[in-house]
Amino acid sequence: MAATRKIIVGVDLGGTSLRAVVVDPNDQTLAEVKTATPAAARPDVVIRAIARTVDEALKAAGVRRGAVGAVSIGAPGSVDAKTGVVNRAPNLGWTEVPLSKKLKALLRLPVLVGNDVHVGAIGEYALGAGRGTEHMVGIFIGTGIGGAIIIRGQLYQGSRGGAGEWGHTVILADGPLCSCGHRGCAEALGSRTAMEREVRAAIKAGKKSVVLKIMKDRGRERMTSSVMARALRQGDQVMQQVLARAQYYLGLLVANAVNVVDPECVVIGGGIADRLGETFVAPIRRTAYQYFLRARDAERVKILPGSLGDNAGALGAVVLARQWLRKN
Amino acid sequence: MAATRKIIVGVDLGGTSLRAVVVDPNDQTLAEVKTATPAAARPDVVIRAIARTVDEALKAAGVRRGAVGAVSIGAPGSVDAKTGVVNRAPNLGWTEVPLSKKLKALLRLPVLVGNDVHVGAIGEYALGAGRGTEHMVGIFIGTGIGGAIIIRGQLYQGSRGGAGEWGHTVILADGPLCSCGHRGCAEALGSRTAMEREVRAAIKAGKKSVVLKIMKDRGRERMTSSVMARALRQGDQVMQQVLARAQYYLGLLVANAVNVVDPECVVIGGGIADRLGETFVAPIRRTAYQYFLRARDAERVKILPGSLGDNAGALGAVVLARQWLRKN
Repeated sequence: MAATRKIIVGVDLGGTSLRAVVVDPNDQTLAEVKTATPAAARPDVVIRAIARTVDEALKAAGVRRGAVGAVSIGAPGSVDAKTGVVNRAPNLGWTEVPLSKKLKALLRLPVLVGNDVHVGAIGEYALGAGRGTEHMVGIFIGTGIGGAIIIRGQLYQGSRGGAGEWGHTVILADGPLCSCGHRGCAEALGSRTAMEREVRAAIKAGKKSVVLKIMKDRGRERMTSSVMARALRQGDQVMQQVLARAQYYLGLLVANAVNVVDPECVVIGGGIADRLGETFVAPIRRTAYQYFLRARDAERVKILPGSLGDNAGALGAVVLARQWLRKN
Repeated sequence: MAATRKIIVGVDLGGTSLRAVVVDPNDQTLAEVKTATPAAARPDVVIRAIARTVDEALKAAGVRRGAVGAVSIGAPGSVDAKTGVVNRAPNLGWTEVPLSKKLKALLRLPVLVGNDVHVGAIGEYALGAGRGTEHMVGIFIGTGIGGAIIIRGQLYQGSRGGAGEWGHTVILADGPLCSCGHRGCAEALGSRTAMEREVRAAIKAGKKSVVLKIMKDRGRERMTSSVMARALRQGDQVMQQVLARAQYYLGLLVANAVNVVDPECVVIGGGIADRLGETFVAPIRRTAYQYFLRARDAERVKILPGSLGDNAGALGAVVLARQWLRKN
């Protein structure tokens, strides 16, 4: 048990940014360092950047490596949690990268690797919006839609670590094409990418919208959550309508998840929920409640925005490391 | 452990028939009795009929009550497995019936109650098509669509025993009205009831079909699985087309389940699968494989018709009773 009392470094490895938090045994964050992920770089370059960021965070916290129980990483894409290999991470351009092994060689510390959404959901479950529940579903909405199922405090991995892909469940048979190549997936209807496609199509069809102007003013190539928030503040009707439609589909998705998993809580995470909070979640909740099979579930199943924001991934990685240390 | 070596009586309580099997500690069926469920009767009348059927089965097996470890029942509708209360069973016209307590008073034996689909899935998992797998999804297709998730040999119940309602997940947003009052549920697209509705609509629209004639010849008011089988044998095109469409939607549903649960096996149970076997399941499998998120899953995730037929429920009830006796 002594090992679980050690300090943990949680790392959130994103396509654009890299974040490390140093957390003590009492859940206190001692230091936090955020840097840019080296762009279009080879895996080894990115892994050295992770090692540097971990060391900087430890230095900022005044902690030496010997006091660290584990470094735990949330990585985008499909991850084999048992071997610590990132099988495929399109955001990083990675295929079959043995992240755990390589980082361990640099840091000489145990290194754990999990899928970023799985890790973020565990964070919300243990320390965020899902605290106090036994069964939780996490649905993270950003450029894509990721998900996780948590059963009695443990991430449910399925037979090969691939469980929880709510984003790639069909909710509109023969609907729009999805990034995965299939049609009608929730991701093709409710993700930020799907919403941007709808906004652009509406503008092309002659509808007036400030979205493209806001993107230009802010130097953004994509319709980010902050662009969405600003367009909504300006009362942009195209943005409102596109968002409402996505929220309807996301409400159906949440209801599907509740009817299948029967959880106490669904946490909606990711950039849009972090930025818009209840504005984003309330209409999703309304539709979901209508589509619950057991109407009385509306009284007891909570549907909440995540409460950890950008820290969900790094803090969730810490929680996973504690679970791992207790078992090993 | 001694108790687990006892004889178990498994009961399948259906809206039309009632079945009891007596199984010895080596999984050998000693006797089997099937009778009609008293029609439109009060719960007490049905419960007395269950007690009688159990006693008859024991008599046929040459087993006295004292050698029985438990009577275990699969009941249609929503069941509270902890209290043995049938909350709602539309097929039987029951609301809040304390089945376990009442039957125990008659038989003076421990009585367990589970949802019929949950129980049937456990049967297929332990003794049928799902044998040898760790994670399994069961989808039972009949007048409705029920489902179950099995994780490491245990039925996953969710926070209130309501998990696994695959039939009431939306797969075609704004699609046809479902028995639950929502739109676009799998049950409204792939159940026998949905298929019958489509066949009748096609005939009304002037298409030629032998289905209604077969129903009349056999004295059936509903399009049963045997009516479907006969129409298909006669090359009825309406039946073929309606079935193919339902199979497509069921394939999407199976893919959704695989993408969320990541099981090793999906068992398709219920009357149509029992009757048509591969004719029913092969097209479902083809569509599901196309919609798997991880294409390589097609090599390892089995999609099979149930192999226990009408006995899935009663045998599954036996398996659940053994699990319960081991714990108690």
